Amino acid sequence: MEYLSLTAAQQCILQHTLQLGVETIPLEHALRRVLAEEVYSNRDHPPYDVSAMDGYAVRAADLSCTPSELTVVEDIKAGAMPMMAVLPGQCARIMTGAPIPQGADTVIRVEDTQPVGNECVQILCSALYGTDIRSRGENLRNGELVLGCGTEITPGVLGILAMVKRTEVKVRTRPRVAILSSGDELEGLYAPFDSDKIPDANSYTLMAQVQALGIEPVLLGIAQDDPIELSRYLMRGLAYDVLLISGGTSVGVYDFVRPTIEALGIQMHFWRVAIRPGHPLAFGTTPTTRVFCLPGNPVSSMVCFEQFVLPALRDMMGHTRLFRRTITARISKPMKHRAGRTELIRVTLDADEQGYQATPTGAQGSGVLLSMARAEGLLLIPNECDGLHAGASVTVQLLEGAAYQQHSGIAEGI
Amino acid sequence: MEYLSLTAAQQCILQHTLQLGVETIPLEHALRRVLAEEVYSNRDHPPYDVSAMDGYAVRAADLSCTPSELTVVEDIKAGAMPMMAVLPGQCARIMTGAPIPQGADTVIRVEDTQPVGNECVQILCSALYGTDIRSRGENLRNGELVLGCGTEITPGVLGILAMVKRTEVKVRTRPRVAILSSGDELEGLYAPFDSDKIPDANSYTLMAQVQALGIEPVLLGIAQDDPIELSRYLMRGLAYDVLLISGGTSVGVYDFVRPTIEALGIQMHFWRVAIRPGHPLAFGTTPTTRVFCLPGNPVSSMVCFEQFVLPALRDMMGHTRLFRRTITARISKPMKHRAGRTELIRVTLDADEQGYQATPTGAQGSGVLLSMARAEGLLLIPNECDGLHAGASVTVQLLEGAAYQQHSGIAEGI
Repeated sequence: MEYLSLTAAQQCILQHTLQLGVETIPLEHALRRVLAEEVYSNRDHPPYDVSAMDGYAVRAADLSCTPSELTVVEDIKAGAMPMMAVLPGQCARIMTGAPIPQGADTVIRVEDTQPVGNECVQILCSALYGTDIRSRGENLRNGELVLGCGTEITPGVLGILAMVKRTEVKVRTRPRVAILSSGDELEGLYAPFDSDKIPDANSYTLMAQVQALGIEPVLLGIAQDDPIELSRYLMRGLAYDVLLISGGTSVGVYDFVRPTIEALGIQMHFWRVAIRPGHPLAFGTTPTTRVFCLPGNPVSSMVCFEQFVLPALRDMMGHTRLFRRTITARISKPMKHRAGRTELIRVTLDADEQGYQATPTGAQGSGVLLSMARAEGLLLIPNECDGLHAGASVTVQLLEGAAYQQHSGIAEGI
Repeated sequence: MEYLSLTAAQQCILQHTLQLGVETIPLEHALRRVLAEEVYSNRDHPPYDVSAMDGYAVRAADLSCTPSELTVVEDIKAGAMPMMAVLPGQCARIMTGAPIPQGADTVIRVEDTQPVGNECVQILCSALYGTDIRSRGENLRNGELVLGCGTEITPGVLGILAMVKRTEVKVRTRPRVAILSSGDELEGLYAPFDSDKIPDANSYTLMAQVQALGIEPVLLGIAQDDPIELSRYLMRGLAYDVLLISGGTSVGVYDFVRPTIEALGIQMHFWRVAIRPGHPLAFGTTPTTRVFCLPGNPVSSMVCFEQFVLPALRDMMGHTRLFRRTITARISKPMKHRAGRTELIRVTLDADEQGYQATPTGAQGSGVLLSMARAEGLLLIPNECDGLHAGASVTVQLLEGAAYQQHSGIAEGI
């Protein structure tokens, strides 16, 4: 049976992702969704020239000799319109964000001034014309395209949407995902305890991996190793956009999955990928569903999800950033590797002056889920590599939970 | 007025975080929460010695001459118990995860065998005793402590919880967070359009930043610049664990926030931090509430949230990883910097063979929210730095949205 390379398998999957629809949702629910419309500004922002500082709005020409003394004609706060023009020898006390009065062209921050009684102020410095004024429309110009279709709604983007008063936004829908485990040996989470059974962890690791992408999946349960039962479960699963099946793809005589899948008209694109852990990975399609057959081992299943399902789900959601962030790290001990397959080693990361050092989390057996629970990243050993020496520079994919670290990364004396 | 360093301000805040309670929640809702109990295994896993491969369970001593021919006495599938012992010259066909029959001590994978009729098999290789057998209790041992208090529930951890059949888990509660904007100039998202007003973006960027941590905040609205109204809003806000106020902390005459805050008995710990953007940041406490006064500028407010509020909220949720992941990058152009404050420059990241290159997102004015919307990270210029040359190595905090990238990072021929 042919083994695809990791990259070829990813490309095959991404060539077959589904185009889903769009929906309109309240701004309050829009974080991490992807815009399905162009967004234009409905106003100039700021709406007029405003002060960037608390201080005094002055005429720069008045500051030729330092210090200069000016008459304060008005107090202007943010949200109030100036009543007076500033004439030569005059100024206005002004707040950050308040409109610049007519005649003034420059703002002097309060730290560079000295009050003289209530109605006069000494300006202790000179300033360039226009200093500390933010111009009308500097941030957004009325009618301007501010956010394109396909933009991921981060907190900053959501702020722009609020600025242009979008209470609702059109976004890409999220795929509906179903998860199925298969195998007579499995015991469901809510099933009675049987010490001879294997608890079904895969449904829950996959559930969590899907949830981490902002999608609430449906757990279909456990299909026994019986073609009629499996067929019934698969038909339920084919009502979803994406069906994840764990277990049942190995080559043995008791595997009903392959023939049952093919009998349902699912077109299979590949059955094996040259990676470790995780090689028994299969991918198929119907006109409306993408089907991933993941390995039964929990670690293999999780690693395959990361490499194959995650980019496909992000693609369906409209994202352009499909893959986990990678960083460069060094390894402290040499690593053996047999060329011909891509290996993904679970590692923790430690920062020092030279950057990150990656250390394997211990036993790398595909049943050792604790090693995945402890991992901050997956170290990628390329397929043509025939081993890595100590100190070698490697690429590490950051896993869920590794978006945060213990140290601030800020170098400063206190 | 004294300016604290960024690190000193973070330390002050973290010394004052609230200890919150614990709650019991279904496993299905536990992703990204923090365990508030120790978790022990309730079984051996695997429950017996199992095959790690599809193949044949053999006696290693039978393989001294290669190839060797063995009689197949039984088919053993996962979830079924073996009925026969394997005697010398015999073997059993076995599936991944199926129990090893009595007498067998080694598994030969199916790829290394050749069937001879229905009841015999040729084994084409020899093997070390114990090969491809996973021992009872190899992954989890009954009664063993598997997850400590304070563990973040990642997908891998959630899988371990499913393995030990935890349908519910005790986790740390999340802080209740309220958000308040202040300023006469502000127009609410649902208020009628007024071209002279400034739309309130801060409530929504802060909302999204809080949501990104898994907390659904309450938006209190906009308090006008009036001490009685502000006081009423603040009293509502003090019913929460954390109150975020944006705007109103500058030094000008129209600021009612400081006296109003102090009149309510909020003990203020500092009013200024030596960072840019974001220096007008204040922090106060009551016995039950942590109060952050954030700058009115949207970018400054977002940057202050990242540096000060985010670690505090993560600490209250029980996390030990409080800070955004940082990476090392190079800069392509020199950067000016005035020693004495820490600067945070919005950048995008591009990967090349030497790692990451960081490029500022354009205008760095604190009103330019688009620059924050486009940023993948914040480049940290330390306070004692007096400028960076082109090619300098810098630290970049990865922002929300930067957990994913466009390229897989996998180097391989297809």
